[in-house]
Amino acid sequence: MTYCCGVLVKEGVAIVADTRTNAGVDNISTFRKLSAWENPGEKVWALASAGNLGVSQAVRAMLEDGFDDPIAGENATLGDARTMLHAAEIVGRAVLRARDIYEEPLKKDGVPFDVSFLLAGQVKGRRLRLFRIYAAGNFIECTPDTPYMQIGEHKYGKPIFDRAVGFETPVLDALKIGLLSMDSTMRSNLAVGAPLDLIVIRRDACRIDLRKRIDATDPYFADLRERWSRALRAAHAAIPAPPYSGVEPE
Amino acid sequence: MTYCCGVLVKEGVAIVADTRTNAGVDNISTFRKLSAWENPGEKVWALASAGNLGVSQAVRAMLEDGFDDPIAGENATLGDARTMLHAAEIVGRAVLRARDIYEEPLKKDGVPFDVSFLLAGQVKGRRLRLFRIYAAGNFIECTPDTPYMQIGEHKYGKPIFDRAVGFETPVLDALKIGLLSMDSTMRSNLAVGAPLDLIVIRRDACRIDLRKRIDATDPYFADLRERWSRALRAAHAAIPAPPYSGVEPE
Repeated sequence: MTYCCGVLVKEGVAIVADTRTNAGVDNISTFRKLSAWENPGEKVWALASAGNLGVSQAVRAMLEDGFDDPIAGENATLGDARTMLHAAEIVGRAVLRARDIYEEPLKKDGVPFDVSFLLAGQVKGRRLRLFRIYAAGNFIECTPDTPYMQIGEHKYGKPIFDRAVGFETPVLDALKIGLLSMDSTMRSNLAVGAPLDLIVIRRDACRIDLRKRIDATDPYFADLRERWSRALRAAHAAIPAPPYSGVEPE
Repeated sequence: MTYCCGVLVKEGVAIVADTRTNAGVDNISTFRKLSAWENPGEKVWALASAGNLGVSQAVRAMLEDGFDDPIAGENATLGDARTMLHAAEIVGRAVLRARDIYEEPLKKDGVPFDVSFLLAGQVKGRRLRLFRIYAAGNFIECTPDTPYMQIGEHKYGKPIFDRAVGFETPVLDALKIGLLSMDSTMRSNLAVGAPLDLIVIRRDACRIDLRKRIDATDPYFADLRERWSRALRAAHAAIPAPPYSGVEPE
């Protein structure tokens, strides 16, 4: 399993990804699922992946080393992307190329072709954008109405985003809320786990502002988890018990 | 979709169920999915269902009107149950009988056989028990280590249980936490919705203590949702922003 989330706000974009992979609960490993690249001042992007690790690594390898893009009719790498939209298209086409190769053999083993990506970044003179790319190679773009996107085990960590994040949220607060969302997910699903990879890209800077790996003992993250637990306990304790009584007919 | 949760604590058991059903997002209706029966002082139980509505109603009809129980070799109703364990077995066998009839035809329509139940109750002189019954007719029992069970859309509402509920929690607080869990679920999944059905059974009373239907405008529930939202906003606002900076190598 995996959980990655990206928040696109006015100031920039914050991305949080876990590193746990598992083939069953008896085979758990740590793999980086969030990477970023920059040509400072010109181009920057971050790519997070979820789904089958073999497939997502194959797509990453194609994006780095080049693959025969059936639509462009030429060998393509992610580095060729002229715009973020173009970059999302290239990722989508690499997904389709991997699908051509691996979907049938995986099916024979009873494994669905399952992969998805978050792609965030900016090219100088253009907009900062965040995309979610699906296993069909198509994608959707994050907009201010719902300024976050998730891949992988998304349900446990969604309520905090729906309540807490808006387009005007400062980007470091967006990162904090991403960590709270990750905390809820890690508590409920053992297949999502630390260390965590964090990326912040500020709007119009066209460079990586923050890239950091933290583990569960990181003092800030440990304090955040403890404060959040304490605040939730206090919050529900402060709500009075239901005043209901009686037995209505069904 | 559906969401039902049951919390079994020292004082008793509290159950909350939504009433929304949907066949696609363009066909949404209201159906009761939580019902209770009592012979005051002797026997009491509550049954909540999730999954395919046609299947769960078929099982309920069998439990009420009788079905040929292949294991007991006789016609059985839920009313025949001598103990809660026996009641769980009867529900499981009715599920298997429905499976015999409907699984193949459903499969031809591309619909999986999907149904599950929560069954809570007590027979005089025996323990108050809470079971979760699966589509295979088998079941698990709730124990003090994890004093809650969920069926249907369970992920959004699980974190609050993991943080907030213990076996010593008073039963009306357990009901309150069930309502908070339902609130998180309703906010994230439109296929879970009010009105809500509530049941409380107190340990050793062998009767229904509370049976009530509330809608979204119920003053207590509306206040609970508003207080919870406000407290969560205050809680994450009180946590400082991450102190991280710098760009580590990958």
